[in-house]
Amino acid sequence: MDHLDLAAAQQLDAADPLRAFADRFVPTEPGLVYLDGNSLGRLPISTRDRLRRFVDDEWAGDLIRGWDRWQDLPTQVGDRIGEHLLGARPGEVVVSDSTTVNLYKLVAAAIDGRPDRTAIVADADDFPTDRYVVEGLAAQRGRSVRWVEGDPIEGLAVDTVVNVLDETVAVVVLSHLHYRCGALADVAAITAAAHAVGALVVWDLSHSGGSVPVDLTGWDVDLAVGCTYKYLDGGPGAPAWLYVRREHHGVLRQPIWGWFGQRDLFQMARGYDPRDGVAAFLTGTPSVPALVAIDEGVALLAEAGIDRLRAKGMALTSFAVDLLDAHLDPLGFTLGSPRDPERRGSHVSLRHERALELCTALTANGVIPDFRTPDSIRLGLAPLTTSFVDVWTAVDRLATLASLTS
Amino acid sequence: MDHLDLAAAQQLDAADPLRAFADRFVPTEPGLVYLDGNSLGRLPISTRDRLRRFVDDEWAGDLIRGWDRWQDLPTQVGDRIGEHLLGARPGEVVVSDSTTVNLYKLVAAAIDGRPDRTAIVADADDFPTDRYVVEGLAAQRGRSVRWVEGDPIEGLAVDTVVNVLDETVAVVVLSHLHYRCGALADVAAITAAAHAVGALVVWDLSHSGGSVPVDLTGWDVDLAVGCTYKYLDGGPGAPAWLYVRREHHGVLRQPIWGWFGQRDLFQMARGYDPRDGVAAFLTGTPSVPALVAIDEGVALLAEAGIDRLRAKGMALTSFAVDLLDAHLDPLGFTLGSPRDPERRGSHVSLRHERALELCTALTANGVIPDFRTPDSIRLGLAPLTTSFVDVWTAVDRLATLASLTS
Repeated sequence: MDHLDLAAAQQLDAADPLRAFADRFVPTEPGLVYLDGNSLGRLPISTRDRLRRFVDDEWAGDLIRGWDRWQDLPTQVGDRIGEHLLGARPGEVVVSDSTTVNLYKLVAAAIDGRPDRTAIVADADDFPTDRYVVEGLAAQRGRSVRWVEGDPIEGLAVDTVVNVLDETVAVVVLSHLHYRCGALADVAAITAAAHAVGALVVWDLSHSGGSVPVDLTGWDVDLAVGCTYKYLDGGPGAPAWLYVRREHHGVLRQPIWGWFGQRDLFQMARGYDPRDGVAAFLTGTPSVPALVAIDEGVALLAEAGIDRLRAKGMALTSFAVDLLDAHLDPLGFTLGSPRDPERRGSHVSLRHERALELCTALTANGVIPDFRTPDSIRLGLAPLTTSFVDVWTAVDRLATLASLTS
Repeated sequence: MDHLDLAAAQQLDAADPLRAFADRFVPTEPGLVYLDGNSLGRLPISTRDRLRRFVDDEWAGDLIRGWDRWQDLPTQVGDRIGEHLLGARPGEVVVSDSTTVNLYKLVAAAIDGRPDRTAIVADADDFPTDRYVVEGLAAQRGRSVRWVEGDPIEGLAVDTVVNVLDETVAVVVLSHLHYRCGALADVAAITAAAHAVGALVVWDLSHSGGSVPVDLTGWDVDLAVGCTYKYLDGGPGAPAWLYVRREHHGVLRQPIWGWFGQRDLFQMARGYDPRDGVAAFLTGTPSVPALVAIDEGVALLAEAGIDRLRAKGMALTSFAVDLLDAHLDPLGFTLGSPRDPERRGSHVSLRHERALELCTALTANGVIPDFRTPDSIRLGLAPLTTSFVDVWTAVDRLATLASLTS
């Protein structure tokens, strides 16, 4: 098929309005095709430079005086994420702790906010840490988990969730974008159904934030969390953001009481008196270098614009699906993601019975995908950094490797 | 007094076996006297260089492949801290989350480990986040807090704690070194008394770790936590370490179940099955740049040796006390720390009714101390970086400012 050769990929790159953003990142080793930005985002040059300035000037130079500014970063950077990527209002997002710890705080707050209800709804096929947090809180607080499970390719249907909702449900904990198959859940519809029975929702946007338009305000979401080291390029282990809808401020309370959640923290007062707003969900001292890095990553995404990022993400995944159909289908691969580009995020999964072996071989051949047990090769197509030639190269090498070893 | 002039300070510096370590740190602005290393440690040159290599080579270059090594850093760096600074055995320390979140995990584990007991003993004058964590967990788990309070200068006496211990106490949560006055608590004696009634202990070593010899094994400590951005120079907001005594592994369980605490995390299995040992106290994805920075800070402390660090710390605080007696006593200052150098850590507090105003003026005059409400000027004397001339200069300027404005 002519439109699926290397020249076609080059033409798509030439026409890509976001093409120049790839040059804003520190280069990888020559020739490397990195398709795992949905696990760990690449390093923007601006982030590298700002981290150097931070370390040399702010940490080494300002020392303790830096805290006059640094103490506002969790809310400032949170607001920028909220404005540019989440459709949140000012004062609803902070950066604080890991995704896991933030999920723990939010799910606990939701359970405690519905004290007479006995059930938690969660996805049995969700990302592990989400499941473990729910499992732990259910055990500790004497709640039961009502596990739902979506289609392994199409993800969670609204009805699958609606079918288990009733007035015993305290909270529904789900992911917007499935970590393995890349399917998008219908946040607005599921949230409305949860609200109809009086339950709260906690959405994990780790795989969607920064790659797919999100409208937390319009979708009426109560609580949400998301990762910053994927599309936000905050670096390995950078802390997560969390969102608490304004209407829940001062009402829902999280369980980890610490000095960064305290009003007038340097008064060091007796008696915990939480700060107003979402800042009551802060806990201990936040990682300042990570906040600075996230800030740069968000600036880059904001400059590109979430709509252009989404358009390119869909074009990249569609190109990957077309290449699969043309070149990989005869080699035993099947698509592990939704065929409708509107229904998937910015990664696609290719399923193959020898996925682990092929993933290892592909990595050894200069293309880095991600293996997800048991049989998925996940191609993360980060709109800022991935080119159409990258996608073509990955599929071409995968076809070669599968032919050689089959 | 002759032995308290600048020349005397210079002689003390010349004889200091750790003198050369100050040159291993990125210089501050010329002339600055930084006496707040017990709030935020200065930046070692080796840490700056390693962070640059980490960002340029590991994050930008290795990308996701780095996790093959990075995933072991929480236990590896934990073991190094444990060996060089804490008297812990291998496999008892990890780096994970903030001090606040770690305290939460440890105190919750201790409460849950003594389910039939109703009381928590804590210090009403402890660092705020310790108090807030205890207050929150007591409220959430239906326990009462038995607040004790030490002398504002001499700190907690063993008997003050012993007097409130009985068989209703689940856990005793205290700090080894008081954040304001710098007094050391008798960890071994208090721990033995707690154990005598069947209670567990959680010790916060944030202000002692890296400046005072610690023997968690010999002192029979159950659980401990400590900060890495003070004497360990891990940078603003670097995550804390936590210690779980080997005998409690697999017995005490922490409440935040997450994927880094899961056995074989990339199996992404259903059902939380915690890792063996202290690793069960890990939660979410750890901050890798911070782990790398902490590792360098610990290497520097290990090279100096905790006994030499302690000896210099005592000499520095003793010099400060002598200068106070000679020059500041007539100006309304009193010592806010124990007189016996064995009973205090590496910082001294000077109390004055205009402490806040004088602290601000001192900072404006090139000496950075720390104000602690209501009336303490805290001089943090970091053995690796603070010189005797620094101490002399600080007291000299403080005397001048107090004279001018009195």
